Amino acid sequence: MSPFHDVKTLVTNADALIYCIDMKDQQHYIPARRDIMEAAQVIEGMVHKTPVMTSRLIDEIAGKTCFFKMENFQRTGSFKIRGATFAVEGLPDEEAEAGTVTHSSGNHGQALARASQQRGFPCCIVMPHTAPPEKCDAVRTYGGKIVFCEPTMASREEVTSQVIEKTGAVFIHPYDDGRIISGQATCAVELLKQVNDLDAVVAPVGGGGLLSGTALAVRYTDPSVTVIGAEPEQADDAYRSLHSGAVCRDLNPQTLADGLRGYLSDLTFSIINDHVHEIVRITEQEIISAMKLIWQRMKVVIEPSAAVPAAAVLFRKLPVEGKRIGIILTGGNVSLSSLPWM
Amino acid sequence: MSPFHDVKTLVTNADALIYCIDMKDQQHYIPARRDIMEAAQVIEGMVHKTPVMTSRLIDEIAGKTCFFKMENFQRTGSFKIRGATFAVEGLPDEEAEAGTVTHSSGNHGQALARASQQRGFPCCIVMPHTAPPEKCDAVRTYGGKIVFCEPTMASREEVTSQVIEKTGAVFIHPYDDGRIISGQATCAVELLKQVNDLDAVVAPVGGGGLLSGTALAVRYTDPSVTVIGAEPEQADDAYRSLHSGAVCRDLNPQTLADGLRGYLSDLTFSIINDHVHEIVRITEQEIISAMKLIWQRMKVVIEPSAAVPAAAVLFRKLPVEGKRIGIILTGGNVSLSSLPWM
Repeated sequence: MSPFHDVKTLVTNADALIYCIDMKDQQHYIPARRDIMEAAQVIEGMVHKTPVMTSRLIDEIAGKTCFFKMENFQRTGSFKIRGATFAVEGLPDEEAEAGTVTHSSGNHGQALARASQQRGFPCCIVMPHTAPPEKCDAVRTYGGKIVFCEPTMASREEVTSQVIEKTGAVFIHPYDDGRIISGQATCAVELLKQVNDLDAVVAPVGGGGLLSGTALAVRYTDPSVTVIGAEPEQADDAYRSLHSGAVCRDLNPQTLADGLRGYLSDLTFSIINDHVHEIVRITEQEIISAMKLIWQRMKVVIEPSAAVPAAAVLFRKLPVEGKRIGIILTGGNVSLSSLPWM
Repeated sequence: MSPFHDVKTLVTNADALIYCIDMKDQQHYIPARRDIMEAAQVIEGMVHKTPVMTSRLIDEIAGKTCFFKMENFQRTGSFKIRGATFAVEGLPDEEAEAGTVTHSSGNHGQALARASQQRGFPCCIVMPHTAPPEKCDAVRTYGGKIVFCEPTMASREEVTSQVIEKTGAVFIHPYDDGRIISGQATCAVELLKQVNDLDAVVAPVGGGGLLSGTALAVRYTDPSVTVIGAEPEQADDAYRSLHSGAVCRDLNPQTLADGLRGYLSDLTFSIINDHVHEIVRITEQEIISAMKLIWQRMKVVIEPSAAVPAAAVLFRKLPVEGKRIGIILTGGNVSLSSLPWM
């Protein structure tokens, strides 16, 4: 394991501040090939090996041959269960008995609840009281306990700190964690086994856990494949980070793609900066159109965040010559009562 | 081939009246095992071999192990392409040069257009002028020409007759045709190959093409499997037909499941009467709930008609002891702008 963060870089990462006291150094490193292969081995049978789908009509629109990795069919409805399962499975009994905790109003919360439930550990998810009831129900379905906070980053962190102090629970960050990145990387490992001769892989980027894991998996498996990130134009902090050479942190970006509102950590920035070819930006209208088209033509439910990489191919934004493109459709957790095209 | 209809029974079938003059006797028979196997062979590679999906959560709700045959992923978005392809592929060149015609505002229209396009024949679909624009667009996508009529059965038949007279096009009935039934039967043939030891198979019933094909496929392949039909309570003519021993014809049933508004023909009635164990009835509210649950939990888009057999298991309506149930999710063509739970 190659330690990556020192105290100085940690302190520049607002997300890390609250738990840097009991920081486990080994959680902050760029995963090596063996970490990712270990993750693939550990989670095998605990998460789904999701299928790859194709569509003649989508290919015609995109002018490429598209291979969609269907993580919307994944357990808990998104790829997040990969990283959460690997992180939780690796916790020593004595450390995890007090349970796990994270702050998330989305897929990482459900995933951590489920992964903890599988090991029989309690799990506490700190969520803003404004979170939609579906998301709360989903966390509870997997045995997670919800502690509500105000819908601000400060309140999330404060309440999470209180939970840690009170219960001794282990904090599992949604992406700023080498174990999480290793787990998310297994998605691309599978995809590269399922489809030969890919020219590029496209993944969305929010906090960068999936994109950095994807980039490492590709780097270790077949470095000839180009890795592209896709990001909402209205939450394009990763794009600006890459182009300015320093992490940009937007605290409250407005995009439909609620899974992509996070910003990079120093760890994910470093990996993406080194191994991702380009980040392309997608407008809100393109997100909606791509999402609707995938539902209509492929008959699958994907969430707005998953529509972002789909839009990158559908609107022909990829800066690659090659024809064979892998696209990670990250999740399908969406409120069916309020669809963005209605 | 065993001829089934004589002129007398044909005349009792309103749908058949308009084209009984040039009726091809060989189209009106109960398919034999060899017909269904021929259909499977002919359409192989021309239609998708659709996957089977499972869901732990759905199984918990249903109290059964459910194997969903995903015909929503089929070409043209429904199983109808199976029968249409087999029927069109079997037409002699000289007969089909003038094209094909049918009246349908739904999936059979799209399927016939696509099947005809594949052979390079013109296709004309008679549709009520009230048909939603999405359905018209879909027919045109596959090169079909639309001729509009009034939204009554009389007008549909009259306009269809005019097309036949004017163009010499071959009429392909949506279900009252042994070739169509043989084609639809291939879905269950595949399912029985994909899943071992099924206790029952559930298919929806409208005109009865799919259900009668399913019943025959099961009968010829593994007669120990029970075949159940699922029908909207508000369009329960097949249920009443089976229980009264004579075909009931409701001309204008009101159900969300627009693919199931047809009524049995003498041919489909006869097959269903002999080989289907029972027809269970599903309320509109159950259709909506099942449809929403499948979208939410399985992340797939199914149309209301496909939700009918799903509801049969989800609401525990199946009169079978066995645990392993195959469910045909027939299609996914739905207007995303007006969902029934909104």
